[in-house]
Amino acid sequence: MSSQAYAGEALGHFLAASRWADIPPALRHEAVRSLLNHLGCALGVARDPAVTTALEVMAGFSGAPVATVIGQGRKLDAMSAAFVNCIAGNLLDYDDTHLRTVIHPAAPVAPPLLALAEQRGHSGTEVLHAFLLGMEVECRIGNAVSPGHYDRGWHITSTCGVFGAAAGCAKLLGLTATQAWHALGIAASQSAGLVENLPSAAKNVGMGNAARHGLLAALLAEAGYEATPAAIEGPLGWARAMGDMPQVAEITSGLGERWEIARTTYKPYSAGIVFHAVIDACLQLRAELDVPPEAIAAVTVAGDALLLARGDRAVRTERDARVSIHHNAALGLLRGRAGVADFGMPAVLDPALVALRARVTAALDASLPRGAARVTVRLADGRERVATVLQARGSEARPMSDAELAAKFRDNAALGGFADRADAALDALWALETAPEIGGLMALLT
Amino acid sequence: MSSQAYAGEALGHFLAASRWADIPPALRHEAVRSLLNHLGCALGVARDPAVTTALEVMAGFSGAPVATVIGQGRKLDAMSAAFVNCIAGNLLDYDDTHLRTVIHPAAPVAPPLLALAEQRGHSGTEVLHAFLLGMEVECRIGNAVSPGHYDRGWHITSTCGVFGAAAGCAKLLGLTATQAWHALGIAASQSAGLVENLPSAAKNVGMGNAARHGLLAALLAEAGYEATPAAIEGPLGWARAMGDMPQVAEITSGLGERWEIARTTYKPYSAGIVFHAVIDACLQLRAELDVPPEAIAAVTVAGDALLLARGDRAVRTERDARVSIHHNAALGLLRGRAGVADFGMPAVLDPALVALRARVTAALDASLPRGAARVTVRLADGRERVATVLQARGSEARPMSDAELAAKFRDNAALGGFADRADAALDALWALETAPEIGGLMALLT
Repeated sequence: MSSQAYAGEALGHFLAASRWADIPPALRHEAVRSLLNHLGCALGVARDPAVTTALEVMAGFSGAPVATVIGQGRKLDAMSAAFVNCIAGNLLDYDDTHLRTVIHPAAPVAPPLLALAEQRGHSGTEVLHAFLLGMEVECRIGNAVSPGHYDRGWHITSTCGVFGAAAGCAKLLGLTATQAWHALGIAASQSAGLVENLPSAAKNVGMGNAARHGLLAALLAEAGYEATPAAIEGPLGWARAMGDMPQVAEITSGLGERWEIARTTYKPYSAGIVFHAVIDACLQLRAELDVPPEAIAAVTVAGDALLLARGDRAVRTERDARVSIHHNAALGLLRGRAGVADFGMPAVLDPALVALRARVTAALDASLPRGAARVTVRLADGRERVATVLQARGSEARPMSDAELAAKFRDNAALGGFADRADAALDALWALETAPEIGGLMALLT
Repeated sequence: MSSQAYAGEALGHFLAASRWADIPPALRHEAVRSLLNHLGCALGVARDPAVTTALEVMAGFSGAPVATVIGQGRKLDAMSAAFVNCIAGNLLDYDDTHLRTVIHPAAPVAPPLLALAEQRGHSGTEVLHAFLLGMEVECRIGNAVSPGHYDRGWHITSTCGVFGAAAGCAKLLGLTATQAWHALGIAASQSAGLVENLPSAAKNVGMGNAARHGLLAALLAEAGYEATPAAIEGPLGWARAMGDMPQVAEITSGLGERWEIARTTYKPYSAGIVFHAVIDACLQLRAELDVPPEAIAAVTVAGDALLLARGDRAVRTERDARVSIHHNAALGLLRGRAGVADFGMPAVLDPALVALRARVTAALDASLPRGAARVTVRLADGRERVATVLQARGSEARPMSDAELAAKFRDNAALGGFADRADAALDALWALETAPEIGGLMALLT
């Protein structure tokens, strides 16, 4: 890639030149797993007002209905469908995570590709290929500005998602290397989204825009719109405007050889990712102890400074619950699970959970690595039991199996009211690489 | 305004509480002048491929055609029409300028308001009122982050334009103070656009998005979407992410008493604003000397460091011409004008202009204030004549008259091929404050 002088130029060449057959089989399978995980998340929240409100507003500004809105029984134009589906896929942050950047890669990239493919009749392989490349570009651009970018206030999944969506759409549309370069440069002028707004519905707007703007960038580049060569790394360009010490070489280092997207993880629990080891440890103790909750006198959760900073808090809302050490420990011990419903208001107010949360104490143990947790349970009879989890289930070291991802998909589908269609959708997804077009899959997700 | 703790809250209250009758008459008239200037600029470039390409791409993603696309003989939905019309209004930077921030205030704000009003039947006064308030919010937010924001790479008309559009749309839709506050917070998560991309069509995308996203923000807030209270000034919010030393108090200081938008200026010439004094001085010398161009032996243009940094350059493209000391001086002396056509490729290549440009020398005179110029012409017979312009025509000190703005509008209309409708459109614009709806005006601009 060293012959290209600009980051966008190298990425454009990478996109145009990439062939599906050259991508390692494990990674091609990962594209299916990632899409499956994304679509399950979107199905699970189909009835959430944040999603249905976005749908209602966009419906007034949509062209011909050609693209399925997941779980809504209706279609919009490709740009509006991408907007709503991206919001749904990421609404609860229950989707995939690229840990180095904390980007959720799939949500901004998959929706415009599915919408375009449904409209234009692209094959399953074409969609998966574009999806994988889009996410790769997204994470690499994220690497270049992390961690200063997020710390400065940029919601990185939105701000980098638009590049991923543009890259994927450029590939699916068959843009030339130069057009793809322009598409990425146009995406740079559409990159937006703030961390300050994450606790509000404004987060969703940043996300939805990332998806539809990537598509818009690619379509404008196809129609002849151009961007400045160094839109990403120039002195008044994206990386400097949005990052304090950008490492632009990260974008192209080992491009096509080392795959960032191979490091994506999936969440088995609908909690903030730093709480997953806490839940794992509690599940383990629950199985070992097998006692009623009233037998538990005290629970101590030890972790590093990040865990305590994020999670040592009172629980008043669904959002609090998802990032509470106390709630997550209580869920693991009491319910033996931590699905979407376990963070709803009924769970927040559940007297048994409230009582157990009150017996949980958070404690700093700086010797524990990031992402680890040690949980100590003291029983009323004086017995004490300890469980330490260094690598949570779903982490890079302990990835979710295909069967676990399928189970998560079924749970999400049931949550959205689509239990009866879950298995057929799973079958279609596992067979997507051989599907000549994606209409059958989308019909199952309607 | 001191009872509101947040910047967005104060602005939301200001928007909801403002009454047209309370606004000084001179400022109300300024809203008409600003709209007239904006619409003329949009008419002038109606046939530019940058505008027609944007129209073609958006036409595939537009709902019912209810809003006029200026000079195109067709309509789109309000969001798409706002996108295209904003691009047209600002395409050549020939529109209005708020000098303190270098924001072009009208282009992102007017298009969504005209589109909404055309669709929903709002009156001329309602449009003008929302337009004025939107631009005021836009410039005040720009003040808070200037000049560091632009220097960091942010195209301030795009990044602040989305707030102006959101504010204007919030007013026109009759949102409550709280809803308007949310609309501004949602706008913060949509703020984007890079200086690096200004020499390319990607600039247009940032502009068009500012206009349609302001509308989207207001519609989402109307439908119940919320933002974080401190989306603008919070620790991980807009001002800190996008500005190095934001002065948030500038947003609300004297709100409703001191009007930033009263300081908007309009351009009599289609050149970068720092070249206007050069043109003025040359026009003056041209009238005094009344000699053929071959009688001019040498021209020296003196100005401050900014003028020289921006304008002492070779002229190869239309863009070069618009920011060239040599071209602008030659135009003033040779053609006695500096309209849009005087910066096209035929002018760049015109042998008479090429020859005269070669006789122009730029010279630093640090004693001259910003925006001033001194031009010395030496004739072949040895005579020398000097003209110094401290305040260019169109500056705050020498504003363009209504008649001059009308003449500029007619020139622009003729450029776009609409000379026959210019006077009727001008009549409708000057009478807009009494128009019960704006359909008649929009029909003249189709």
